[in-house]
Amino acid sequence: MALTLARTMPGVLELLPLDQIAFQRMLDVIRRNYERFGFLPVETPVIEFSDVLLTKTGGETERQVYFVQSTGALDKEGAPELALRFDLTVPLARYVAEHERELSFPFRRYQMQRVYRGERAQRGRFREFYQCDIDVIGKDALSVRYDAEIPAVIYSVFRELNVGAFTIQLNNRKLMRGYFESLGIVDGERQMLVLREVDKLDKRGADAVRDTLVGEAFGLDVAVVQKILAFVQVRSTSLQDAFDKLDALGSGPEIMEQGRAELKEVLAMIRDFGVPESHFVLNLSIARGLDYYTGTVYETTLNDHPQIGSVCSGGRYENLAGQYTKSHLPGVGISIGLTRLYWQLRDAGLINTAQSTVDVLVTQMDPAQLPAYLALATELRSAGIATEVVLEGGKLAKQFKYADRAGIRFVVVLGEDELAKGVVTVKDLRRQDQFEVARGELIKTLRVELEQAAAMG
Amino acid sequence: MALTLARTMPGVLELLPLDQIAFQRMLDVIRRNYERFGFLPVETPVIEFSDVLLTKTGGETERQVYFVQSTGALDKEGAPELALRFDLTVPLARYVAEHERELSFPFRRYQMQRVYRGERAQRGRFREFYQCDIDVIGKDALSVRYDAEIPAVIYSVFRELNVGAFTIQLNNRKLMRGYFESLGIVDGERQMLVLREVDKLDKRGADAVRDTLVGEAFGLDVAVVQKILAFVQVRSTSLQDAFDKLDALGSGPEIMEQGRAELKEVLAMIRDFGVPESHFVLNLSIARGLDYYTGTVYETTLNDHPQIGSVCSGGRYENLAGQYTKSHLPGVGISIGLTRLYWQLRDAGLINTAQSTVDVLVTQMDPAQLPAYLALATELRSAGIATEVVLEGGKLAKQFKYADRAGIRFVVVLGEDELAKGVVTVKDLRRQDQFEVARGELIKTLRVELEQAAAMG
Repeated sequence: MALTLARTMPGVLELLPLDQIAFQRMLDVIRRNYERFGFLPVETPVIEFSDVLLTKTGGETERQVYFVQSTGALDKEGAPELALRFDLTVPLARYVAEHERELSFPFRRYQMQRVYRGERAQRGRFREFYQCDIDVIGKDALSVRYDAEIPAVIYSVFRELNVGAFTIQLNNRKLMRGYFESLGIVDGERQMLVLREVDKLDKRGADAVRDTLVGEAFGLDVAVVQKILAFVQVRSTSLQDAFDKLDALGSGPEIMEQGRAELKEVLAMIRDFGVPESHFVLNLSIARGLDYYTGTVYETTLNDHPQIGSVCSGGRYENLAGQYTKSHLPGVGISIGLTRLYWQLRDAGLINTAQSTVDVLVTQMDPAQLPAYLALATELRSAGIATEVVLEGGKLAKQFKYADRAGIRFVVVLGEDELAKGVVTVKDLRRQDQFEVARGELIKTLRVELEQAAAMG
Repeated sequence: MALTLARTMPGVLELLPLDQIAFQRMLDVIRRNYERFGFLPVETPVIEFSDVLLTKTGGETERQVYFVQSTGALDKEGAPELALRFDLTVPLARYVAEHERELSFPFRRYQMQRVYRGERAQRGRFREFYQCDIDVIGKDALSVRYDAEIPAVIYSVFRELNVGAFTIQLNNRKLMRGYFESLGIVDGERQMLVLREVDKLDKRGADAVRDTLVGEAFGLDVAVVQKILAFVQVRSTSLQDAFDKLDALGSGPEIMEQGRAELKEVLAMIRDFGVPESHFVLNLSIARGLDYYTGTVYETTLNDHPQIGSVCSGGRYENLAGQYTKSHLPGVGISIGLTRLYWQLRDAGLINTAQSTVDVLVTQMDPAQLPAYLALATELRSAGIATEVVLEGGKLAKQFKYADRAGIRFVVVLGEDELAKGVVTVKDLRRQDQFEVARGELIKTLRVELEQAAAMG
């Protein structure tokens, strides 16, 4: 038989086991923190009906959708009936609308699953990637206090992910909208176009953006453009500084005052949630999905790795599921794109290959003693210690080498001597050290060693 | 805007949060036990190249495949280039072939992900379902001892899943093949056809199967058919009984003797692995995938729910990845179809809706005290206690009702009285009980309560 080349499609991240363990640990940290804040798990099917998935999306998103057909449906005319989800927000909207009567509101859910986008193949662009989302959905109304809880979750997650210093950046779309109105840019569409230009500040530089905005396409006054550029460059250095800078914007239309009041309430409350002032700032350039978010918006950046961009973003939206239900369902949420984050952190040398999930390898010194080795392994496993037993045998040196290569730290040897003396020899491959321990003390000793190892990271 | 009906496609299992928690706990138990036995995590992409996925499969499987196309590829001629995996075995084969040089052998991996099959919509048939697989893959050779380790893992998993009494049933394809040869049924294809008829024993009854086998299509001697039917009805009642019944089959061709020797070694060693004799039996009717497995085969049944059928099956195969590599990669593994298992257990009333993952709800008695409530919540969360805070306020009775409906057991009340006295009131909604505890003792007290609750299940 001719061989088929074993390969995966471009744009997916498939990991070797020790890398998968590192990735899994990040997933576990995120999940644990989401649960600590009282978010409940939800999983939705990867495949959704195309008409359910694509009610809201424009042409651009549509081109990136993967459609699905069973063999029997391949020859049918028309667009495929099924498609893969491209985010977790549309499935959440569908889920809440479908199960509305069975849910308690405010509904706090987390969802950590993969999503699919038919991206052009390109380094760092993924066609399959994990999103780790939380959202709080209110029925009819949702207090702005929930907007202050979200940064507390972000803080908790990223502190435990141990990826260095990070900053949660906040803005408010109402403040932005109102400020633009106060400058005479009243039309929503026009605001969006201006914001899109302003968003290019980092890429194109202030001069180029200014030229565009005073040029033919926009025709804005130089003074107005100066004000816009000054606005989006506002950053706070402390909570008090944030308040001062918000006040310094001057008064504006009602929507702007509303945004300012919301931002102040949220910023003050973030501190009450225990987030240090060093970890959150006002950043009036944050706009996010221009037509989706309506109030508070968030981005999170790693202080030492600004090139990575935002690692956790989201915001407040007015109505989650208007395409499916007449119920008014405001919400606030964030998303961590974990596949991309993991890939970038590894690329930046910030993630090491993990130690194995296997704690102990029980070697096979004497094949005749295999039942004793198996009994020992059963004992260790009952104590919650992940244990592999060498079943094939072979030279001891080769067994050690296997453990070393597989990232297993502790190797247990039980030979004639040890059996006679009622002890076990433990070899610590990381410290290049070995010691004898009484058989009855083995579990206690290994537990201490493993706890120390875990604490050391 | 006209509303789109929020719905999922038939054949998927979407759960409400408390059910999802119960499901997630089962996933966690399986994962924890797989890791305890030294299996390493692997995840593979849901989408694979069609030619990679379909090298081995026949027409029947092919009809059940979901093909995938990005919008740009929809108008292209020919079969779609991409497809969704229909099991975890083909992706494992591809993974091992692709990463062979970077893996340590024997390669022990677990994989717990969803797979997709374009099944006809039918009660209890799933188009998307979790498989939880383990496999041990050898390079060139793999000791039959690994065949004995697998039932130890099954025992460990199902004991902790807490689904009542279960029995692991074993057979060996070589024994079967050899026994058929000894009866003059030498051709492999013919053996398969006979086995397929014998497999209908439960459905059609012995008489109908006998009639078919002595009839025109097969033309077997009545005596031969009698022997076959006696063979497949062999069950053991203890390890010694298994040995006796294997011996009683009489001598046969080499392949049969090999199968018998393997079965004896495996059965004896399962006991050494700590599996009680009550939990594994010889069952010579087990055949499994007729063309895939080559040695030991397993099925696992719930003693009190035989109608559910096998909840965990697998076996030994000769060569995992012959379609991708010239390397000889024998292996042994099992799969738990968790979606179906969960669904059936719930259907049989064996799974209750879980308590919430949220341990504590901090109520909002006095909005002015919100900072104190937030500080308390932060404290609880730091201690690993999953805590939700009522941020919207409202009547206390309504807050209790929310907790009750959401499955949160403990509710904390911190009013003027409590603040003055330096205490906290804890309401246990399950026991319909409440008590006061000193603020400084709250975490310790709740931990004890939660541990007790966890121990009670």
